[in-house]
Amino acid sequence: MTPTVTRNVLFVMCDQLRADVLSCYRPGGALQTPNIDRLAALGVRFDRAHVSSAVCGPSRASYYTGRYPVSHRVTWNRVPMPIDEWSLGDYLAQHGRECHLLGKTHFVPDDRGMKQRGLDVSGAAAVRFRQGGFTPIERYDGHFEMQADSPYRQHLLARGYDSDRPWEDYVIGSLDTDGAFASGWYLRNAGLPARVDRRDSETAYLTDRAIDFIQAKGESPWTLHLSYIKPHWPYKAPAPYHAMFGPADCAPPVRSARERSHPHPVQAAYQKHEESEAFAHDTAWQTIKPVYLGLVRQIDDEFGRLLDVLDAAGRMQDTLIVFSSDHGDHLGDHWLGEKEVFFDSAMRVPLIVYDPDARAAGTRGTVSHAFAECVDVVPTILDALGMLPRSQRIEGQSLLPWLRGETTGTLREITVGTLDYAYREARLTLGRGVDESHGTMVRDDRYKLMLWQGYRPQLFDLHDDPDELHDIGNDPATAPVHRRMREALDDWHARRRQRATESDADVVLRTHAHERMMNILIGRW
Amino acid sequence: MTPTVTRNVLFVMCDQLRADVLSCYRPGGALQTPNIDRLAALGVRFDRAHVSSAVCGPSRASYYTGRYPVSHRVTWNRVPMPIDEWSLGDYLAQHGRECHLLGKTHFVPDDRGMKQRGLDVSGAAAVRFRQGGFTPIERYDGHFEMQADSPYRQHLLARGYDSDRPWEDYVIGSLDTDGAFASGWYLRNAGLPARVDRRDSETAYLTDRAIDFIQAKGESPWTLHLSYIKPHWPYKAPAPYHAMFGPADCAPPVRSARERSHPHPVQAAYQKHEESEAFAHDTAWQTIKPVYLGLVRQIDDEFGRLLDVLDAAGRMQDTLIVFSSDHGDHLGDHWLGEKEVFFDSAMRVPLIVYDPDARAAGTRGTVSHAFAECVDVVPTILDALGMLPRSQRIEGQSLLPWLRGETTGTLREITVGTLDYAYREARLTLGRGVDESHGTMVRDDRYKLMLWQGYRPQLFDLHDDPDELHDIGNDPATAPVHRRMREALDDWHARRRQRATESDADVVLRTHAHERMMNILIGRW
Repeated sequence: MTPTVTRNVLFVMCDQLRADVLSCYRPGGALQTPNIDRLAALGVRFDRAHVSSAVCGPSRASYYTGRYPVSHRVTWNRVPMPIDEWSLGDYLAQHGRECHLLGKTHFVPDDRGMKQRGLDVSGAAAVRFRQGGFTPIERYDGHFEMQADSPYRQHLLARGYDSDRPWEDYVIGSLDTDGAFASGWYLRNAGLPARVDRRDSETAYLTDRAIDFIQAKGESPWTLHLSYIKPHWPYKAPAPYHAMFGPADCAPPVRSARERSHPHPVQAAYQKHEESEAFAHDTAWQTIKPVYLGLVRQIDDEFGRLLDVLDAAGRMQDTLIVFSSDHGDHLGDHWLGEKEVFFDSAMRVPLIVYDPDARAAGTRGTVSHAFAECVDVVPTILDALGMLPRSQRIEGQSLLPWLRGETTGTLREITVGTLDYAYREARLTLGRGVDESHGTMVRDDRYKLMLWQGYRPQLFDLHDDPDELHDIGNDPATAPVHRRMREALDDWHARRRQRATESDADVVLRTHAHERMMNILIGRW
Repeated sequence: MTPTVTRNVLFVMCDQLRADVLSCYRPGGALQTPNIDRLAALGVRFDRAHVSSAVCGPSRASYYTGRYPVSHRVTWNRVPMPIDEWSLGDYLAQHGRECHLLGKTHFVPDDRGMKQRGLDVSGAAAVRFRQGGFTPIERYDGHFEMQADSPYRQHLLARGYDSDRPWEDYVIGSLDTDGAFASGWYLRNAGLPARVDRRDSETAYLTDRAIDFIQAKGESPWTLHLSYIKPHWPYKAPAPYHAMFGPADCAPPVRSARERSHPHPVQAAYQKHEESEAFAHDTAWQTIKPVYLGLVRQIDDEFGRLLDVLDAAGRMQDTLIVFSSDHGDHLGDHWLGEKEVFFDSAMRVPLIVYDPDARAAGTRGTVSHAFAECVDVVPTILDALGMLPRSQRIEGQSLLPWLRGETTGTLREITVGTLDYAYREARLTLGRGVDESHGTMVRDDRYKLMLWQGYRPQLFDLHDDPDELHDIGNDPATAPVHRRMREALDDWHARRRQRATESDADVVLRTHAHERMMNILIGRW
């Protein structure tokens, strides 16, 4: 073990943030994100980072456990986490540390499963159990009116936003040109400014709390998950962000006529979702996309404020910073709204890692084209703190050897994503059962294969067709590609960490050990 | 729901019993099994029943949970069961019932995992937790010298088998022709009689305890798992079973010269195991196989005694009986000893189900060629008791509709098996890591495909080659078969019950429910 100076971790997650709107990911756009770019200049920007599922719940469970959805089994939003899964905070607790939380996790504990099996939990372990391993400073999942005891709600009321429903009335509420209330739940109202001062909006509030926490910690080590709510819908920004960009500043959706006239059955069902039909109209994306860019700009501004605090406090010397998002947002691409299905607009995310260690000097400001995945975050954090266990559970890999230029080897040959669309209208449209609505994506350097239970596969050649507009899944000439990708998937399945209750070291110890450990002879003549 | 008269369940499991040694499965051999055949005449004999893994631990975990090893994650012997898994006894406990145990389960609880997460369990739930859902009358896993407090050990001592190690000295111990001690651990001694009276041997002892239990229960309903230790090694039978059969009564091993001269790498590594090298000599199988048949004959005799007791007590009217085994035994087939790899000698097991219900009258004595699997036992038992939950966990299917002639539909198109050989010498021989030693078998009506991590697949055409001697995995003409089998496997993976913490009914309730249940609008213009 080499010594490390890293004592703190700041793990920033955005919600529904596409990689390609950040100026470090796609320079030349109207939106500039100088502060996120500043982090990229200090660290490594992973250009081909993918989530394991483009849905909040499963993606976050992968970020927090370092495991794929087939392993942690949180296949969709609010599916309770099985009680035998370990999260970042559980690993840290083995070293007397904790992971504080500000913002969203989408985590639901399996309290009912515990009770049914007669299991109980108490003390600090109970907090971790019910909060997915985190120690909440303030958990705030967003997208709903808040409970009465929510500190953010208290903050809004104290600041004079007087209402029974301050979130709906102010945070996502607007007044139209006639002075009538215009709810942020309706896309048509997105361009109107929120009725909160930008300093009282969700992004600023959570940043303030993060600054409070970091300043209160002083020289004591800490790990903080700052989990922003935005730019997730309802698309609603406070002034000046609501009007910072216009339709001309936004790229039109990436979509072809043929995608709509000859869609794959699952894509067709998703195209019929209300959000997809809305985004099919130019008016919708021309209304939403400018606000989306404004919300991202606000994140950048607030993140810059936080970086300044870290810098002034000397914390850039000893703090690992991870910046990412739980998935993207189609925003009309492929005739889709929202996320879920396997196009890059949903599966590809920003991932920037700043390693304060001197050994990372050689990679600062560089770009990695490795297939980094959300499952790599937990092992990277634990590795930076010198706490990386030889875990039989963690499926991701520490990125530190790549951050420190200790290897230039391939991180992984393929990236895999899964989707359980049992909960979505698409399943009803297709008339499928709750266990007949599974999708799997395999992507290698060139191709992306999408397997859909009960339907033909889709295939895209990302070299010839980086926008994923030409589905060649039915082309007989691609049979060798199908075969190779399926073989890679079979191998991927074989490598899942199913044997999670026994350490690899114990497996080694128990290998060919019947005589040595148990005085058993097998087959001795 | 139609009324059922079934109140009791007798679930008999043998250990390492091949299907094809029973006379109901292969008539005309020297070994007659009239009592097992009697059960087959009363019930349905499944001719193509398979286990999910040919290793005790994972196979039993599948029998007891109704789930495949990729789901319950007990991938080998003594891998602790993850704490969120449910066993037969856990389901019965929801109805105030329990599943009593006599004999082997190979179950190991994940006490360490519980403690590390700060979880606790107490009361009746603690017994179930630590015994895999069972309520032990007497747990006896066999194959080891017993602990001091073992009732079977006490029984042996009381019967005059005086020793610190009564199991090693008497139950598997013999005297050679010179009167010297000859341990049953050595195959060369298999033909010598055990030093216990047959009535004090493991099979008879467990049968006695089962009879005691059933008679004590009287008219009270019960569920009993009677889990015999035999004919698992050490191959050692008491008189007269040790000498009931000779080499001429046994079929020679099914194996070809080419299997040995040109083996697949994984098969080659298994062929180098001590037990495989022993069975490669004719002397070995000619010594072992007669004893194996004798041990099976003893099971048949004892099982007949149990059937007589059930009959005399009127219990055949209200007792579901399941007879099966956790896997087979290669016994020299394919130049292999033991089990594990995917040939029928290990994967195919006897499965006979007697349903006392009048609705099963039409199928009595019939043979089913459906791909029944060990995962079907739990749902069949629960169904017979009227307790089959709409479980999101159980992956097997109730066989009752087939037993009652209510359907003639296909039970399943393929049967799948898995192997984690991390713990075996074969892994060391091949120089592979503990997560690089996974095998998967897919079998359909005609073909059996074996996938080996890091090596080429094996393929067998069971119509043309029922003995699995000609590996056609490398034949380019079989590419379409490979493709079809891999597609079936991908679909199988998609259907695994990963979403185990939420009921299917709740999934249905939560489908497309964001507006109805949560007042959330997504994408409304």
